Amino acid sequence: VNGGVESLDYEVIENYAYREEQAKRGRFYVGYSVMVKWFFALLIGIGTGAAAIFINLAVENFSGWKFSLTFSIIQHSYFAGFLVYTLFNLALVMSSVFIVTHFAPAAAGSGIPEIKGYLNGVDAPGILLFRTLIGKIFGSIGSVGGGLALGKEGPLVHTGACIASLLGQGGSTKYHLSSRWLQVFKSDRDRRDLVTCGCAAGVAAAFRAPVGGVLFALEEVTSWWRSQLMWRVFFTSAVVAVVVRSAMNWCKSGKCGHFGSGGFIIWDISGGQDDYSFQELLPMAIIGVIGGLLGALFNQLTLYITYWRRTYLHKKGNRVKIIEVCLVSLITSFISFGLPLLRSCSPCPVMEANSAIECPRPPGTYGNYVNFHCAKDKKEYNDLATIFFNTQDDAIRNLFSAKTIHEYSAQSLLTFLAMFYSLAVVTFGTAVPAGQFVPGIMIGSTYGRLVGMFVVTYYKKLNVEEGTYALLGAASFLGGSMRMTVSLCVIMVEITNNLKLLPLIMLVLLISKAVGDAFNEGLYEEQARLRGIPLLETRPKQYMRNMTAREACRNQKVVYFSRVVKVADVVSVLQSNKHNGFPVVERGHNGEMRVIGLILRSHLLVLLESKTDFQNSPFPCDGSMPIRHNFSDFVKPVSSKGLSIEKIHLTRDDLDMYIDLGPFLNPCPYIVPEDMSLSKVYNLFRQLGLRHIFVVPRASHVIGLITRKDLLMEE
Amino acid sequence: VNGGVESLDYEVIENYAYREEQAKRGRFYVGYSVMVKWFFALLIGIGTGAAAIFINLAVENFSGWKFSLTFSIIQHSYFAGFLVYTLFNLALVMSSVFIVTHFAPAAAGSGIPEIKGYLNGVDAPGILLFRTLIGKIFGSIGSVGGGLALGKEGPLVHTGACIASLLGQGGSTKYHLSSRWLQVFKSDRDRRDLVTCGCAAGVAAAFRAPVGGVLFALEEVTSWWRSQLMWRVFFTSAVVAVVVRSAMNWCKSGKCGHFGSGGFIIWDISGGQDDYSFQELLPMAIIGVIGGLLGALFNQLTLYITYWRRTYLHKKGNRVKIIEVCLVSLITSFISFGLPLLRSCSPCPVMEANSAIECPRPPGTYGNYVNFHCAKDKKEYNDLATIFFNTQDDAIRNLFSAKTIHEYSAQSLLTFLAMFYSLAVVTFGTAVPAGQFVPGIMIGSTYGRLVGMFVVTYYKKLNVEEGTYALLGAASFLGGSMRMTVSLCVIMVEITNNLKLLPLIMLVLLISKAVGDAFNEGLYEEQARLRGIPLLETRPKQYMRNMTAREACRNQKVVYFSRVVKVADVVSVLQSNKHNGFPVVERGHNGEMRVIGLILRSHLLVLLESKTDFQNSPFPCDGSMPIRHNFSDFVKPVSSKGLSIEKIHLTRDDLDMYIDLGPFLNPCPYIVPEDMSLSKVYNLFRQLGLRHIFVVPRASHVIGLITRKDLLMEE
Ligand SMILES: Nc1ncnc2c1ncn2[C@@H]1O[C@H](COP(=O)(O)OP(=O)(O)OP(=O)(O)O)[C@@H](O)[C@H]1O
Ligand SMILES: Nc1ncnc2c1ncn2[C@@H]1O[C@H](COP(=O)(O)OP(=O)(O)OP(=O)(O)O)[C@@H](O)[C@H]1O
Ligand SMILES: [Mg+2]
Ligand SMILES: [Mg+2]
Repeated sequence: VNGGVESLDYEVIENYAYREEQAKRGRFYVGYSVMVKWFFALLIGIGTGAAAIFINLAVENFSGWKFSLTFSIIQHSYFAGFLVYTLFNLALVMSSVFIVTHFAPAAAGSGIPEIKGYLNGVDAPGILLFRTLIGKIFGSIGSVGGGLALGKEGPLVHTGACIASLLGQGGSTKYHLSSRWLQVFKSDRDRRDLVTCGCAAGVAAAFRAPVGGVLFALEEVTSWWRSQLMWRVFFTSAVVAVVVRSAMNWCKSGKCGHFGSGGFIIWDISGGQDDYSFQELLPMAIIGVIGGLLGALFNQLTLYITYWRRTYLHKKGNRVKIIEVCLVSLITSFISFGLPLLRSCSPCPVMEANSAIECPRPPGTYGNYVNFHCAKDKKEYNDLATIFFNTQDDAIRNLFSAKTIHEYSAQSLLTFLAMFYSLAVVTFGTAVPAGQFVPGIMIGSTYGRLVGMFVVTYYKKLNVEEGTYALLGAASFLGGSMRMTVSLCVIMVEITNNLKLLPLIMLVLLISKAVGDAFNEGLYEEQARLRGIPLLETRPKQYMRNMTAREACRNQKVVYFSRVVKVADVVSVLQSNKHNGFPVVERGHNGEMRVIGLILRSHLLVLLESKTDFQNSPFPCDGSMPIRHNFSDFVKPVSSKGLSIEKIHLTRDDLDMYIDLGPFLNPCPYIVPEDMSLSKVYNLFRQLGLRHIFVVPRASHVIGLITRKDLLMEE
Repeated sequence: VNGGVESLDYEVIENYAYREEQAKRGRFYVGYSVMVKWFFALLIGIGTGAAAIFINLAVENFSGWKFSLTFSIIQHSYFAGFLVYTLFNLALVMSSVFIVTHFAPAAAGSGIPEIKGYLNGVDAPGILLFRTLIGKIFGSIGSVGGGLALGKEGPLVHTGACIASLLGQGGSTKYHLSSRWLQVFKSDRDRRDLVTCGCAAGVAAAFRAPVGGVLFALEEVTSWWRSQLMWRVFFTSAVVAVVVRSAMNWCKSGKCGHFGSGGFIIWDISGGQDDYSFQELLPMAIIGVIGGLLGALFNQLTLYITYWRRTYLHKKGNRVKIIEVCLVSLITSFISFGLPLLRSCSPCPVMEANSAIECPRPPGTYGNYVNFHCAKDKKEYNDLATIFFNTQDDAIRNLFSAKTIHEYSAQSLLTFLAMFYSLAVVTFGTAVPAGQFVPGIMIGSTYGRLVGMFVVTYYKKLNVEEGTYALLGAASFLGGSMRMTVSLCVIMVEITNNLKLLPLIMLVLLISKAVGDAFNEGLYEEQARLRGIPLLETRPKQYMRNMTAREACRNQKVVYFSRVVKVADVVSVLQSNKHNGFPVVERGHNGEMRVIGLILRSHLLVLLESKTDFQNSPFPCDGSMPIRHNFSDFVKPVSSKGLSIEKIHLTRDDLDMYIDLGPFLNPCPYIVPEDMSLSKVYNLFRQLGLRHIFVVPRASHVIGLITRKDLLMEE
């Protein structure tokens, strides 16, 4: 459907260049390549950790400056404060949208649908470029620092994947370091392994959840997962954890400005409730249902808006995109400053003597009970400002907080929910890097806390904590919108540092996912579909059971090559269709045709461009052919578009020559008999991460059977 | 190699009975089967949790009684105490070995190699029987309660798998509930999914580590893992966590006797060190190396001893097995009572005023600083008794304990290490249920603490805790012996409830696994090999790259059937070989032979036994055949040996009749072209969990290509 998207090839193409490469390998090659892979896992971990720290440092400092400046100004004039606040936000957001529109268009959005696609086996162009990485890092600093209703976690996952891919190719394509030892990562298979590591590292860095990172990557790439890879992915996430932790320790001494008090999302709720009575399961189930409904609604609304944006608005050029983002930023600033202003303050609750909680808290610090537009002499706080006029991380911390029963009024929470939900929907899909995790947690914890308030009021039990319900609400909204399950659950546990809530989180996630699935697909799947990224689900569809492989390729007129082909024929075939693989046939000694393999379009283009393999004779060359190509010639460039037939110039003489495709084809693609059911074919395709399968007629006889015993023979 | 072991068939056999079954399915079948699967996940969780609680309750109470009785007797006479202690142990161990030898022989050992084999695709006979379950539960109560150097965790994993398998077949085979709704679990595929859940539940119950359980199952079954299954496995482990937690809460009120103070292994080390300086990495690396060496040695020694036992000792019958176990029990009692007796006591350390640690502790309670054979008036304790004369759980808790620097002398630790290591080696492989986790943790934490003592002495840093080193030692030994990586790491983190040590545990595990791998395979792989369980590794061997599929089945004379065969021929073929699958060929209208499928030996036996499909004409029956079999007729009985050709009696008339195999064969087994490299075949076989692959000649033409686009077509 989408022109730019191309499949990756997880299969090893055992052509002659590959076999040469294998033969050339010294005794220590295996050990060496393992070492290089581990070394790269380390590098990816360090790189992603460093990127995460940089982003967090910058964001925290920008918002720190913004809020302390605004707070000091509003002591004198609320209007001046509002102006400064708005302009500060606008400036940051503008910088972000400029970077994205003028420098790195692929950096817009969260990037997770694209990475999901990559791990699933399709490569959207430009998502793993160096400029995308830069755009993502600086763009998300601007958009998150500028106070928009979006998060930095999704972009960090994309960042991790970019870092992994760039390391694997030795820097950007332009300043390519084609040193010999980078040969290790020359196949799509190895690259995908690297990106898997990077993706897990990104999650680990974003949430400081190493196990969650592993499971996140795992849920996406389940089919070609191997234990060796698992261990490497785990190592990468642990390196990230160490790097982030060291940096945060270093910052504790106050060298990092405003960073340190907020920063990385770890919302420790260890002080809260960790037991529950059976009656509480009902309100928790209700939270799950609400999460499913609101999440599905969110997916549907964003789908419509994104569709509308793609087809109308963003076609009008970059200027429209910039204006759009600026408008959204102005509205966000206006609402988040204005609404708390309208809200009247509440009196501080009576504190226990040695309580650590301060009320009202002095402006410019972090915590609950914000004094915003309240009487200065009375002990009052503004509950709407506590969550609205704040960084999202602090707001979540306040919503999750235990021992602060009845801090928020239902009216404030409802207002906030409606406003923030609308903002999140509108912001989604604008031309800035944008994650949906943190906004999702905000939305979810708001209605979760609301339900918690009702439970506290009606159940009259002392050990109920509103903060726990807020957490469950957050889990339910994410479950209802993203539909990830295991990894999300582990991430929630790791970011709240509380293993005891695991069963409750699971319950809520199960319900919200089931409810959401009744309406539509998950957020990332919807978005991937919209962007033309064809994801293969893990399970074949029901109708495939009643369909055969032959029926699936019913109307195909297969485009063949014979073993030795005229260059002119190759060119005309490549020009006349868009297929990416072609079967190659040969007439055997007894005159019968035999399928001898599959040649990829990209390899044909390499042959056409280099011209070294052109020959005059229309007969296959014998085995004693000089080695004219090495393995790396056939490697697809990672991030550029690769060759195209239009760009290759051939003289009249060239066109009259022949090529022997024998040495360059993949001699044994996987095959299926014509009447195998499509669901079995699907499993084969998906599990092995293939790109092409040949459908062949039934065999005339069986040469042998391979069973477990045959595969366990000793050498 | 081993007669009893048979492969499982993960492939769906789409024969006519299956197609009938599919067609009969109502509209709600899918929803219904999903519900049943989740319901079973719930049941497995509850069942495994209950079993775990029962075992723990029994073990804790038995050892509680034993130790308190012994302690009260030794106030008067050490000799009488010793007698009582020894006899108590002997009685428990005898009961265990009796159960195993006379009732459930498959319950001996840890069962993990067998379960690993099952998940890998081979079924050892008898491992999932009801009597094995009973034998495992009661046997491990006896052997662990009897103080042998073995643990209850491995058996619990086996227990979980048994429970899952039995639930799936609706009780034991004898009292078979063949209700219609159990049809859901009639294929090897579904059974294996259930066993996967059970296995994860077992780990979750044994270590109270739900995430670790999921990862454990995952590391074993990586190839046919699907996200739906993952979520169900996760749910099962969470249910286990809830069940266990509820039971422990209920026991808090003292209703469970001695249970509650020790019990489930959670060694909370949150009070300990959680930071580390770079210099400490060296001793930690040394711990890793020691772990690798001692672990590899352990594997090698147990391999030799098990081999010797199998070939000489255990051939002599049950009486020898019983005597052997009793001897081991006597030696264990003797050493664990005698050695502390010989050890002179040390004076108690000077405590801080408000320290919770008591020294010496009163007899019959749990904790450090045991008073055993010390002067009664002076404040003294016996460090060897603290770890030796104790349940293993308490001993580990004492070894892990923080804030108890210099509690143990190096001499005591070394004595204990040597003695316990020898005991563990000797005990391994006796005819009782036996896990290696807890003994491994004991051994590892002993030398870990030893290294910790040196670090404390030479590094002179105040924040070093010996307990942390003990933990790392435990991880290193398990890593060096079992070679599990990710799951082990997560389990260690979950049982110590301390996420901060994750990177250190990983470092140590990496080193110890690498060192161990230099010598031999992991414990479970070695044992599986010895028992003739043919495990397929995740990765093809190196030599397979240079070998083709044809070469792998070089000397095979393929045994065929034609579509309609004489019964006598079937019988003679089945008698003359042991193959489990046979290609079926048919002569087409144009006289050419065509391979039309694969028939399994087990299905042939079903046909021979039922006789309903015998026909007089030697021609294929037409499509309008009455349905004589339903799907469940072809289901292999789970735990019995199934039919065998010798047991089927056929009359002379029967033998003269024919069978049309057409409706009963698997019409589309997976095929590979003859010159595909064996490593690719291996991947196909392993990833899809197959049992047979046909090697066929190269095709004459390609009917079509299947690509991603073809699999994404809408219906
Ligand atoms: N050589 C061929 N001859 C005939 N039909 C082909 C051939 N190659 C592919 N097709 C068919 O053409 C369609 C598009 O093929 P194409 O090679 O573009 O695959 P794709 O699914 O788009 O994946 P990708 O292009 O990313 O590899 C598919 O339906 C495929 O079955
Ligand atoms: N129909 C057959 N004709 C010829 N050789 C066969 C046939 N079936 C199997 N073999 C070969 O005989 C050997 C043993 O076959 P068998 O069917 O027992 O498989 P296995 O590996 O033991 O697995 P399992 O018996 O558990 O299915 C293998 O080397 C296999 O290739
Ligand atoms: Mg295409
Ligand atoms: Mg066999």
